Amino acid sequence: KAEVGRATWTLLHTLAAQFPERPTRQQRRDARTLVDCLTRIYPCGDCARHFAELVRRDPPVVSSGPAFRRWLCQIHNRVNARLGKPLFNCDLVESRWAPLGC
Amino acid sequence: KAEVGRATWTLLHTLAAQFPERPTRQQRRDARTLVDCLTRIYPCGDCARHFAELVRRDPPVVSSGPAFRRWLCQIHNRVNARLGKPLFNCDLVESRWAPLGC
Repeated sequence: KAEVGRATWTLLHTLAAQFPERPTRQQRRDARTLVDCLTRIYPCGDCARHFAELVRRDPPVVSSGPAFRRWLCQIHNRVNARLGKPLFNCDLVESRWAPLGC
Repeated sequence: KAEVGRATWTLLHTLAAQFPERPTRQQRRDARTLVDCLTRIYPCGDCARHFAELVRRDPPVVSSGPAFRRWLCQIHNRVNARLGKPLFNCDLVESRWAPLGC
């Protein structure tokens, strides 16, 4: 369970790290859709329901790379809080996850 | 790059492990859509293009859990082959990835 959680955050934060300053309509749609799919078919049912609730209250902000990264960091912190884990300072999110050069 | 690759396969195989015998229309659509989004916004551009090509030639089979798991194993092996990695025996895929009990 923890392993899949870490794997999913790694994918999402890396994806956000390369999300462009000015995303196209398709890129904005894809980011929203990916999050939306995960609220339903994420492989831990309890986690999926909790994630769905968070996303319903605070929908993905996909207007720009920095905005998407900040939104994702805040959602991650809500999950961290629920799990009793330390929170991450979202001012540092831009330096924590680097875009892949490929 | 390798870390995000591993993370994404972990998510996809675990997701496939709990994909039901008889998926609903929504579940089939979500599985297809998730794969489709990744062909475009996967954070390594080269990998995304290669993955898109594989998926175009061999679209996701989402009719049942076992069919989806076999499809995913075969696609993963095409990526393994390209990267010079050992292939996985897809007859064993059902025992490699366990559904999360949550």
